Amino acid sequence: MQENKAQGTDISTLGEFGLIKQLTKGIEIKNSSTKVGVGDDAAVLDYQNKKTVVTTDLLVEGIHFDLMYTPLKHLGYKSIAVNVSDVYAMNACPKQVTVSIAISKRFTVEAIEEIYDGIRMACENYNVDLVGGDTTSSLTGLCISVTALGEAEENELAYRSGAKVNDLICVSGNLGAAYAGLQLLEREKAIFENNPNMQPDLSGHDYILERQLKPEARKDIYERLKEAQIVPTSMIDVSDGLSSELMHICEESKVGCQVYEEKIPVDYETHKMAEELNMNYSTFSLNGGEDYELLFTVPLEKFDDVEKMEDVKVIGHITEASKGIYLVTRDNTEIALQAQGWNPLQE
Amino acid sequence: MQENKAQGTDISTLGEFGLIKQLTKGIEIKNSSTKVGVGDDAAVLDYQNKKTVVTTDLLVEGIHFDLMYTPLKHLGYKSIAVNVSDVYAMNACPKQVTVSIAISKRFTVEAIEEIYDGIRMACENYNVDLVGGDTTSSLTGLCISVTALGEAEENELAYRSGAKVNDLICVSGNLGAAYAGLQLLEREKAIFENNPNMQPDLSGHDYILERQLKPEARKDIYERLKEAQIVPTSMIDVSDGLSSELMHICEESKVGCQVYEEKIPVDYETHKMAEELNMNYSTFSLNGGEDYELLFTVPLEKFDDVEKMEDVKVIGHITEASKGIYLVTRDNTEIALQAQGWNPLQE
Repeated sequence: MQENKAQGTDISTLGEFGLIKQLTKGIEIKNSSTKVGVGDDAAVLDYQNKKTVVTTDLLVEGIHFDLMYTPLKHLGYKSIAVNVSDVYAMNACPKQVTVSIAISKRFTVEAIEEIYDGIRMACENYNVDLVGGDTTSSLTGLCISVTALGEAEENELAYRSGAKVNDLICVSGNLGAAYAGLQLLEREKAIFENNPNMQPDLSGHDYILERQLKPEARKDIYERLKEAQIVPTSMIDVSDGLSSELMHICEESKVGCQVYEEKIPVDYETHKMAEELNMNYSTFSLNGGEDYELLFTVPLEKFDDVEKMEDVKVIGHITEASKGIYLVTRDNTEIALQAQGWNPLQE
Repeated sequence: MQENKAQGTDISTLGEFGLIKQLTKGIEIKNSSTKVGVGDDAAVLDYQNKKTVVTTDLLVEGIHFDLMYTPLKHLGYKSIAVNVSDVYAMNACPKQVTVSIAISKRFTVEAIEEIYDGIRMACENYNVDLVGGDTTSSLTGLCISVTALGEAEENELAYRSGAKVNDLICVSGNLGAAYAGLQLLEREKAIFENNPNMQPDLSGHDYILERQLKPEARKDIYERLKEAQIVPTSMIDVSDGLSSELMHICEESKVGCQVYEEKIPVDYETHKMAEELNMNYSTFSLNGGEDYELLFTVPLEKFDDVEKMEDVKVIGHITEASKGIYLVTRDNTEIALQAQGWNPLQE
């Protein structure tokens, strides 16, 4: 960033209000529930007789992202995607976001606009309105806090607590790819730091890199469930790893579960990366975070419906709580799952 | 904080989920609009046929607060107060907050509990439910992001844009005290840094210190307006200084204004502090930030009502836009006001 500064516009030339004006200009309101967006003490929303869901997530430089390999536009996009993902995980439709950013003075106005370009792209893609926020400076790292709001009919909401014995456990997409992408980026960063003349070798890894740097929330799965008139008995998004999310559902629903290693969807690139790093790819899919896939349960009688649902796999079923939380491995061994998900408090 | 660590509990012993559980245990839901609080992917709210307002603010260490003189409990309290203040400034009633905190590992669990004690106290005082959040680590400073939600009937909402020519301009409480408190704390900090054996001399300044360290949102004024059945034609909270807020109202309402220096309420301690520092106290009241008083306009015919309203002063009136934004000084000079409010982007 330092080099950019010489060519870019210093933030202080605009001031806080000028900067906010510049960043939010041309924002058009897309949802009828947004009555007033940016520009007053608060935004005004009207959810009429629907329920409102609200969720918030904080992305911190050096903990959640490394600016050495994270393009600012992708970072802006990701900050929205991870939040709307939580709204979809309630089986609700995201409608508004607020965004607060703390930026160090080493950033130029152009750099912040990059972040906002990504934010705007994501708002466009997920059809949400940016209705408020706060921009302030930071003495040190970059910090992005997003709150997302969405709506649902009361009987559509999917909590973590509704899974029942014999329910099928389903997951969208594939798991472990974002973590594989992170491993690759970290490896190349280490090589570059040891020898700055080395060029990073990222070829052939486009998919896992995109999963790490520009993850998508599963709007499509939310829509497919709606089309199929399925309300999951429980749902959660996979942000901390499959094991960790299964444990949340089992704990909140007071049930156990059995999932089958061979059924857990893993992409070819994730396999390849695990192999390159001499690691077990199941470690990636079970404990790697940031997949933002949807993990949900449906009653057994919905088997045909979910079986034919594009990009959804049945990976196991819910059992009595006393049976515990088990993975059946390829060689038919049952092992108790433990949440070894990414712990942001340990760095 | 470093000394505490030896005696306190290391954050990593609890992990993210353990920490969140510990911090949010015993939280009871107070508002009927809160259907589900902490513990799922998102909180669920039901505003029925009322409008929802939503606002967010980010407090960053070294920019908005200095841990050298800010007690953690006060910091937690303040982070809620400044957000519900924005809800009151819409003439709406705050109902829920979400809180995200990024903390460096130098903090102990006990230190974070201090912050949450303050947050809980404020939630109690303003009758809002803590419904969600995120706790993560930070490589450097402490960062607190709060989003507040509230409700109002559509015809009760007070925007910045509704002020009309001849409306009376009113302000609650007094102005400049929080800034005076900040000046005092900064002076004593500088003295201490030069000579660590010196004890800070804060006696006789309790009021301005409290205004800086533990500001209150004006719930009482919101309630008095309701009792008096007054819906302000415009309203804003004074967070960046009176001049800056007057300019927001005038710009959004496309009007001008005239305020009278002698009518602007300033506390005795603020006067005294300005004198000690050889500064003009009007600089404090016009440009000092963080008062969190309510600045609002009412139609002329409400003069008697606001005149008798406790802790509310009429300080001027709205004029045609062409007349500009003017302060009439004690010696009857008219000077154009400029927003010299605190700019968080310049540090």
